[in-house]
Amino acid sequence: MKKFEGLIAAPFTPMDENGDVMPELIPGYLEFLQRNGVAGVFINGSTGEGVSLSQRERLETTEAWTLAAKGKAVKVISLVGGTSYKDSIDSAQHAFSAGVDAIAIMAPYYFKPPTAVELVEFCRLVAASVPELPVYFYHIPVLTGCYVPMYDFLMEASDKIPNLAGIKYTHEDFMDYLSCLHFEGGKFDLLWGRDENFLSALVLGARAAVGSTFNYAAPLYHEMIRSFDAWDLPHARQLQQMSIDMIRLLPKYGGIATGKAFMKYLGFDFGKFRIPVKNMSAEAYERFVSDVDALDMSALLSVK
Amino acid sequence: MKKFEGLIAAPFTPMDENGDVMPELIPGYLEFLQRNGVAGVFINGSTGEGVSLSQRERLETTEAWTLAAKGKAVKVISLVGGTSYKDSIDSAQHAFSAGVDAIAIMAPYYFKPPTAVELVEFCRLVAASVPELPVYFYHIPVLTGCYVPMYDFLMEASDKIPNLAGIKYTHEDFMDYLSCLHFEGGKFDLLWGRDENFLSALVLGARAAVGSTFNYAAPLYHEMIRSFDAWDLPHARQLQQMSIDMIRLLPKYGGIATGKAFMKYLGFDFGKFRIPVKNMSAEAYERFVSDVDALDMSALLSVK
Amino acid sequence: MKKFEGLIAAPFTPMDENGDVMPELIPGYLEFLQRNGVAGVFINGSTGEGVSLSQRERLETTEAWTLAAKGKAVKVISLVGGTSYKDSIDSAQHAFSAGVDAIAIMAPYYFKPPTAVELVEFCRLVAASVPELPVYFYHIPVLTGCYVPMYDFLMEASDKIPNLAGIKYTHEDFMDYLSCLHFEGGKFDLLWGRDENFLSALVLGARAAVGSTFNYAAPLYHEMIRSFDAWDLPHARQLQQMSIDMIRLLPKYGGIATGKAFMKYLGFDFGKFRIPVKNMSAEAYERFVSDVDALDMSALLSVK
Amino acid sequence: MKKFEGLIAAPFTPMDENGDVMPELIPGYLEFLQRNGVAGVFINGSTGEGVSLSQRERLETTEAWTLAAKGKAVKVISLVGGTSYKDSIDSAQHAFSAGVDAIAIMAPYYFKPPTAVELVEFCRLVAASVPELPVYFYHIPVLTGCYVPMYDFLMEASDKIPNLAGIKYTHEDFMDYLSCLHFEGGKFDLLWGRDENFLSALVLGARAAVGSTFNYAAPLYHEMIRSFDAWDLPHARQLQQMSIDMIRLLPKYGGIATGKAFMKYLGFDFGKFRIPVKNMSAEAYERFVSDVDALDMSALLSVK
Repeated sequence: MKKFEGLIAAPFTPMDENGDVMPELIPGYLEFLQRNGVAGVFINGSTGEGVSLSQRERLETTEAWTLAAKGKAVKVISLVGGTSYKDSIDSAQHAFSAGVDAIAIMAPYYFKPPTAVELVEFCRLVAASVPELPVYFYHIPVLTGCYVPMYDFLMEASDKIPNLAGIKYTHEDFMDYLSCLHFEGGKFDLLWGRDENFLSALVLGARAAVGSTFNYAAPLYHEMIRSFDAWDLPHARQLQQMSIDMIRLLPKYGGIATGKAFMKYLGFDFGKFRIPVKNMSAEAYERFVSDVDALDMSALLSVK
Repeated sequence: MKKFEGLIAAPFTPMDENGDVMPELIPGYLEFLQRNGVAGVFINGSTGEGVSLSQRERLETTEAWTLAAKGKAVKVISLVGGTSYKDSIDSAQHAFSAGVDAIAIMAPYYFKPPTAVELVEFCRLVAASVPELPVYFYHIPVLTGCYVPMYDFLMEASDKIPNLAGIKYTHEDFMDYLSCLHFEGGKFDLLWGRDENFLSALVLGARAAVGSTFNYAAPLYHEMIRSFDAWDLPHARQLQQMSIDMIRLLPKYGGIATGKAFMKYLGFDFGKFRIPVKNMSAEAYERFVSDVDALDMSALLSVK
Repeated sequence: MKKFEGLIAAPFTPMDENGDVMPELIPGYLEFLQRNGVAGVFINGSTGEGVSLSQRERLETTEAWTLAAKGKAVKVISLVGGTSYKDSIDSAQHAFSAGVDAIAIMAPYYFKPPTAVELVEFCRLVAASVPELPVYFYHIPVLTGCYVPMYDFLMEASDKIPNLAGIKYTHEDFMDYLSCLHFEGGKFDLLWGRDENFLSALVLGARAAVGSTFNYAAPLYHEMIRSFDAWDLPHARQLQQMSIDMIRLLPKYGGIATGKAFMKYLGFDFGKFRIPVKNMSAEAYERFVSDVDALDMSALLSVK
Repeated sequence: MKKFEGLIAAPFTPMDENGDVMPELIPGYLEFLQRNGVAGVFINGSTGEGVSLSQRERLETTEAWTLAAKGKAVKVISLVGGTSYKDSIDSAQHAFSAGVDAIAIMAPYYFKPPTAVELVEFCRLVAASVPELPVYFYHIPVLTGCYVPMYDFLMEASDKIPNLAGIKYTHEDFMDYLSCLHFEGGKFDLLWGRDENFLSALVLGARAAVGSTFNYAAPLYHEMIRSFDAWDLPHARQLQQMSIDMIRLLPKYGGIATGKAFMKYLGFDFGKFRIPVKNMSAEAYERFVSDVDALDMSALLSVK
C-alpha cells in the first residue's frame, strides 16, 4: 500500500436513541465523507468508540464500512487492538476477511508495556496473524497510558514486523515524530493525529492525518494543506486558528461526545456516545449551536 | 450473601509453556488454597490476567473455578468488567450461569468515567443484568486511571444498584476507605486490596481482603489477623514487615509476573504471564530463589 | 533529643489585613497551643507558608517562635529547606542562633533529586552546617514532586548525616513508612504528617504527628490516641471519621487556606494565605461556619 | 522594547571546581555568544541554575551580565520569580537597578496557582514593582507544576499587567501557543523555549527563541531559520533532526548538566551543576565526547 495523502476521517459510530448501532447509516456516511475529499476512514478507534462496542458490534460495523467502501477511493483501516493479543488476533483475522485495507493496533491499556520490547512483541503476534495486511500502530498515550517513544518502537519493530506500514501518531511529541519521519530513509507512513496542531506536523513533512474533526470540517484542513503547500503561511495559520477555536468547544461541552453534536449540527443524527463517555444535555446543545454559529465558519465545514 | 471474613486469594491463571490456559490445574489449585484457609477466590482480575485472556478463555476458567468450588466453603467472585458495558453484561450473565457467588466490575479503563455519575451508570447497567448476584466494585485506579473517590461512588450508587455488595479497595486512600466502611451504618463489604498495608486497614475495621500474595503466604496474614485481634501489635507489625520484605521482590524482579515465580517456588508451575507483562529470565529466577530463601519465612508460606 | 510523643502543630503565620506578618501574635498563639496539649511547633512549613514569606520574614517569625517557647515545654522545629543549599545553610545557621530545637529540610522542588543519592547529598550539606542540631527530613512529595522512597533515603543517609533525627512523613505510603519505623531497630523518629489517617499510622507504631488540624482540633486527636492506646477501636475510628469530616471542608472551601478560617472560627484572626494560595470569599466563610457548626464537634476543638 | 528576533541563549552559570560562582568568566562568555549571533541572554533561569544560587549569588551574576552587556547589542533578561512575591519584588528591583533590559517571572512552584486568576495576581504584584521594565512570563510547567494555559493567562493578564511584554514558552502545547501568538492582533512577544521542535513553532509564526543549546550550537539554529525563511524545508528538517540527535545526549548522560559538558567540549570549563542536579562522571564524559564527535556537526557548533 502506498503512503496516504490527505485526510483520513475517524468516523463516529451511528447509534439510534436506544444506543443501538445503526449500520444502515454507514453507506450514506461514507459517501458524505468521500464527497468532502476524505481519503480513508479509521474505524473502531477512539472516535468510533471501538472499546465501547461489543465484539459482535465491532464485526458488524467493520463489515458495513468495508462493504460501503468497496470500489470506492476511500480506504478502510480498522483498529483491532485491545488488551488481549488473542482477541486482537481474532479481530484482525475477521477484519482481513471483511476486506479492510489495513489494520491498526494500539498499546494494551490495562497492563501497560514497560518498554518497546514488550510493546513490539504484543504487536508482532497480532501482525503476524494477517501477514498480507498493512499494519499501523496507533499511538495515543493519553488514553492508553503507554508512553514508549515511537522512535524506540520503530527501532525494535522495524525488523520484527514485516507488514508494519506506519503509525497513527496522536501525541504532541514533535521531536519523536520527526525522528520517526526520518527513520530508515522515511520508510514508514506517519499519520498525524492531532488536528489542532496539524500545521506544526506539516512543516516536519507530514502528508496525511487521521482526525475526528475531518468528519465535519474537511474543507478547512484541505484549505490549510493547500495554503501551506503554496507557502501562504499567514492564511494557513489563520485556518489552524479556526480549527483550534472549533476544537475548544470539545472540552467546553464535555469532551469527545461533542463530535456527534457537530454531526447533528450538519444534519446527521448519530445518537450519543456510550457510557462512560459524558454527553451534553439538550439545553447545552442549544448553547453549542450558538457557539458554532458564532464561529462563522460554515464555508469551511463539510457539505452535506 | 454475608460479608466476607478473612482472606480471598486472587489466583493466577495456570498456563502451559506455550501460554495456553490449563483449566485442568484449577481443582488442585483450589484445594491448595482451601487447605491454607482461603475463604474465596477473586478470578479474572489483575493477578488472573483477565484482560489478557480471550473472551472464550475467560468463560472457560470461570467454569473451571465454579465447578471446582462446588460444595466447598470457598466462594468465587469473577471480574466481568471491561470497557464495553455490553460485553460486560454478556460476561456477567455467563458468570451467573456458571454459578459464581458474586461478580465484580471495574471502571472502564480506556475512556475514563469523569465523575461518579458516569461510573455508577456503567456499573448499574451491568449489575441490573444479574439482579440475583451480589456485585462488587473493583477499585484499582493505578491500573484503570479512574480516580473517582469510592465515597462519592457509594453516595451515587447506594440507591441505584440494589445488588451492590461492596468494594474491592485496591488503593492507598485510607480516608476514603474509612468513610466507605462507615457509609450508611456499615452496610457495604469493604474488601481491602493492598496486602502490604493490610494492618493499617484492619485498625479501621477491615475484616477481609483480596490479594495476590494470599496465594502463597496465607499463613502470614492469618497470623497477622490473629495478632491484631489479640492486640499483640509488635508481632502484627513484624508480620506486616515480613509481608513488605516479600512484596519488595515484585518490583525488584519486574512486577506482577513475580507472583507466578513465587508459586513455582512452592512447587506449582503455572507458566508465565502473558504479553505485555514482562517475565523474569531463568537466570533472574535463580537469584529470586536465593532472595526468597534469605527471607527465611518458610513457616509463613502456604503449604503445598 | 528524645523522640517526640503526641501532637506537633504546624502553625499558621499570623498576618494583618495587608498581608504583613504579625509576630506580636505569636506568644499568645503558642500559649494557646500549649494549653491544648501540643508538644511542639513545626514552623515555616506548608501551613506556615514558609515558601511565601520573604527571607527576612522567615527569620523574624523564627525568632518570635523561639522567644515565645523559651522555658516552655513546647519544642520548635523550623523548616529551612529550599531549592538552594547555600540559602538553606544560611537559614539553618540562623535558626540555630535563634535557638530552635531542631531543623527540617525538604527535597528541593524545582530541580527534583533523581535518586536518594542526590537527595541525601543536598540534605547532608545543610545538616553539616549545624552539627549540634537534630535534623528532620520533611517528606511531602505531593508538593515537592520528589518521590524518592524514605526507606531508600534512610539507607543512604543513615551513615552520612550523623545528626539526622527522623522524618516528617506526609505521604500515604504506609509500606514505606513501616519500613522506616523498623529501620535499624527503630532509631529514627517518624512523625506522621497526614491527620486524616493518623489511626492507620498509630497501628504501625507512630507515636507523634505533625499536622495543621492540631492547631484547632488537638482534643480530637488526643482523644483518638487515648482510645487507640486503650484498644477502644470503635471510638478511635469514630474520632478519625470526625477528623475526616472536618478535613473534607478543606477542598470544599478551596484548600489549605481553609485552615486560617478554622482559626477565625475559634476567635483568632490570622488574616489570609498569601498569593498564589486561593482564599475563600466572605460569603463562602458564612457557609463554612454553618458547615463547621453542623459537624457538632465543639467539644473536640481546641479551647481558646 | 521591540519584539526579539533570533536566538536568546540561556547561559550556564560558570563555577569553579569548588562550586563557587566565577563572575569573572561572564564578560568573555558574553562576547563568545555575541560572536555567534546571539541576540540576548536569559539569565538565572533553569539553565543558569537560578534556583540553586543563593540570593547574593543571583545579584552578583545579574550585575556581571548587565555590566558585560553594556553598550553591546545583546539584551539581558533576568528571571526574578520564585515562590515568595516579596522576595521576587526585591529581585526585580535589584535587576532594574543593575540595568537589565527585561525581567521574567515564573509560576510559583511549591504552592501552585490553581487558576489564571491567582497566577496573574502573583505576577502583577511583581511586575508593578518595576513599571518601567518589560516583563516576560516564563512558562515551564514540567518544572513548576503549574499547567494554567497561557491563553487563559493572557486573557486575565492583558489588562492587569501593563508592562507585560510576552512569554517564554517552554511547553509542547502548540494549540495554546498559536492562540497566544494571535492574541489581540499579535501584541505579545512569544519566545519559543523548546529547541528540539523550534521548526514546528516557526511555521506558526515564532520569530525568536530562548534555549540552552543556543549556547553551543547557535549556527545550527541560525541556518535552520534561514532555510525555513527560504522555504527550503528538507534542509530545515535535516537541521532540526541534527538538533534532536544532539539533544538526545542530554537524557542519555543524565539531564540538564550535560549542557556544561557541551561547553567543556567547546573549550569552556564552567564546572558542574549544583546539587540536586546529577552530573556525569569523568568516565561518562569520555563517552560523551565520542558521541558528540560521532554526530559530525562541528560546522554547526558555536565558534570559540
